[in-house]
Amino acid sequence: MPQPPLDRDLLNRLGSRLELSTPALVLDLDALEANLAAMTAWAKSQGIALRPHAKTHKCAAIGRLQMEQGALGLCCAKLAEAEALAEAGLDRLLLTSPVVGARRIARLMTLARNCAELMLVATNPGTLRERAAAAAAAGITLDILIDVDVGQERTGVRDADAALLLAGIIAEAPALTLKGVQGYAGHVQHIADFEERRRASAMSLGLLAAVRDRLEAADHPCPIVSGGGTGTHALDPASGVLNELQVGSYIVSDVEYDAVDLTGDGTRRFRDGLFVYARVVSANRDGFATIDAGSKVLSMDGPAPAVAFGAPEGTTYRCSGDEFGELTLPPGSAPLKPGDLVGLVVPHCDPTINFFDFYHCVRGEELVDLWPIEARGCSA
Amino acid sequence: MPQPPLDRDLLNRLGSRLELSTPALVLDLDALEANLAAMTAWAKSQGIALRPHAKTHKCAAIGRLQMEQGALGLCCAKLAEAEALAEAGLDRLLLTSPVVGARRIARLMTLARNCAELMLVATNPGTLRERAAAAAAAGITLDILIDVDVGQERTGVRDADAALLLAGIIAEAPALTLKGVQGYAGHVQHIADFEERRRASAMSLGLLAAVRDRLEAADHPCPIVSGGGTGTHALDPASGVLNELQVGSYIVSDVEYDAVDLTGDGTRRFRDGLFVYARVVSANRDGFATIDAGSKVLSMDGPAPAVAFGAPEGTTYRCSGDEFGELTLPPGSAPLKPGDLVGLVVPHCDPTINFFDFYHCVRGEELVDLWPIEARGCSA
Repeated sequence: MPQPPLDRDLLNRLGSRLELSTPALVLDLDALEANLAAMTAWAKSQGIALRPHAKTHKCAAIGRLQMEQGALGLCCAKLAEAEALAEAGLDRLLLTSPVVGARRIARLMTLARNCAELMLVATNPGTLRERAAAAAAAGITLDILIDVDVGQERTGVRDADAALLLAGIIAEAPALTLKGVQGYAGHVQHIADFEERRRASAMSLGLLAAVRDRLEAADHPCPIVSGGGTGTHALDPASGVLNELQVGSYIVSDVEYDAVDLTGDGTRRFRDGLFVYARVVSANRDGFATIDAGSKVLSMDGPAPAVAFGAPEGTTYRCSGDEFGELTLPPGSAPLKPGDLVGLVVPHCDPTINFFDFYHCVRGEELVDLWPIEARGCSA
Repeated sequence: MPQPPLDRDLLNRLGSRLELSTPALVLDLDALEANLAAMTAWAKSQGIALRPHAKTHKCAAIGRLQMEQGALGLCCAKLAEAEALAEAGLDRLLLTSPVVGARRIARLMTLARNCAELMLVATNPGTLRERAAAAAAAGITLDILIDVDVGQERTGVRDADAALLLAGIIAEAPALTLKGVQGYAGHVQHIADFEERRRASAMSLGLLAAVRDRLEAADHPCPIVSGGGTGTHALDPASGVLNELQVGSYIVSDVEYDAVDLTGDGTRRFRDGLFVYARVVSANRDGFATIDAGSKVLSMDGPAPAVAFGAPEGTTYRCSGDEFGELTLPPGSAPLKPGDLVGLVVPHCDPTINFFDFYHCVRGEELVDLWPIEARGCSA
């Protein structure tokens, strides 16, 4: 898969990482590679496959690295996201959310034709029947996972009977092939305590296993059992239920995951790899500084970003508008001044990445590349 | 200023407004025009000028409508935003935030050359001196407003002495011209009660007037006194301090402003003009529905979006992830089903618009145009 040509001229115009126009999204390639390697090694040691979720990074260059490390394919949350990645040559995709709306059927068929593998999820009989008819009319075969609600209460069938109904529709539709089940325990991923998370995850996986067992007992084989995430990656393989993990955030981590004991012994498996660089734009009040990063560049759905560099330890961030953030410095700190560069660890990686068109890639202290975020804003 | 050619083919492929791929940002042109006319009429009746803030809409087509209705120019929050609008032919701009970072000076000079009028704000002596030197070296004259902190504690000088220091630097710099003062009372705009908001706004404008008076007494004339917003637009003219208003959100309103008594008598001056259309993707739980709009398309920094159509009155929205929202239906409601279209009034317009590349423009029930959001993501 060809990499897009590097725009050396643009990179030169950007200058060093310390000269970037702010706010800028900065990706630490060493940390990214370390995280990719750590997850790959973990999965290998556990005999489980990876189908990483591209909804986190939305970037073909990162998707390619994941595929090169042996991923089965990539997950996408949205049809437009999948289209953007397929366009960039990443053509083994699982669309993990239901796709609805009559106008999208044609797009779905085009995507299926452009992919070496495209799997969809089924959550509802009516939508599934429409899909079957459209695929038959287009002369296409679609692979299907039955989506199971494992306690998140968002999408998916609520019990085995509903799954059997969907499996029956699939069995009768020549254009559809059942490949297995999917269950994503999104409500479990951020439980900070390891043992508490283990119990919650076991309950979710138990629901998924029960549905799979009922399907297989009724002669609907489920070779794929897909789910999990960064939060439960260290717990899920031992359960023996999943045979592939849909991990996403591990590639760069974020403040939200930094608060979770992922390994059970307090050691960090994943490094902070993603930062928003910002600059002080005003420092006219003692003990405070205003920076040029607010709710248009930092997702406000979770914790506050953490200061990585450029301000004293103990400095805290508070959003003070769409374009501004307020830093509160610890008592007795030397004041910051306009123009000072501050690095922030991203609070919640997926939606923060969604604000930007490019990653500014650094290797150590050097700005070395720009990676387009092809699926940025591809929500529909 | 030429409008970009309308892509009829794309519009045909999109179908009717009811067939849009969701989530989609939908602009009601009748409401937009009514809001533009209402603000223009109000300002005219009060003898105050408008310099609307483009940080809300980020769109050349809307900026042109504002200019056609007699706006003095447009405000921008960020340099990149101003560059995008200047590129689209909107060339009378006020940059309301400080611009820092050495690499941006060259961009600033290019922008100044491309604009019929470019005004900048001064908040800090060091940055101002750099600016003066760069402008002199480039052979450019820059117009400056002194930014005054009127209680928001974000940017701006904190007292008249600091303003006099900046005015002195400007007076000595042949490349800089003092045009006046700016004070934005962002902390006042959303005070729901009219009288309480009046008191808070009067206090802010008093601070601004005091700085202006000290500057003028020291022979630094301030022909422009700029500030205000949608929240205080009905209060500010009577104070006699401001001679232009930097209103932004009035063009489409949002849930946040709908909770504010803008006129003092409970009547609405501005209509809801902006919606995120979403679709039910799962409805497997009684009393609930999952829609395809979460924190990647609805800003989560303020209130929840309100349901405009497609779900029973009393339905509430809760974000349930980056790509999902949960609707809770009132007891006894008929269930929604996958594919059902739901219209949401945007919760906070500025950052919600920032998620999208296009407005889908509707006129009544018809989808009639697509307007690019040129300054989307232009944060740096």
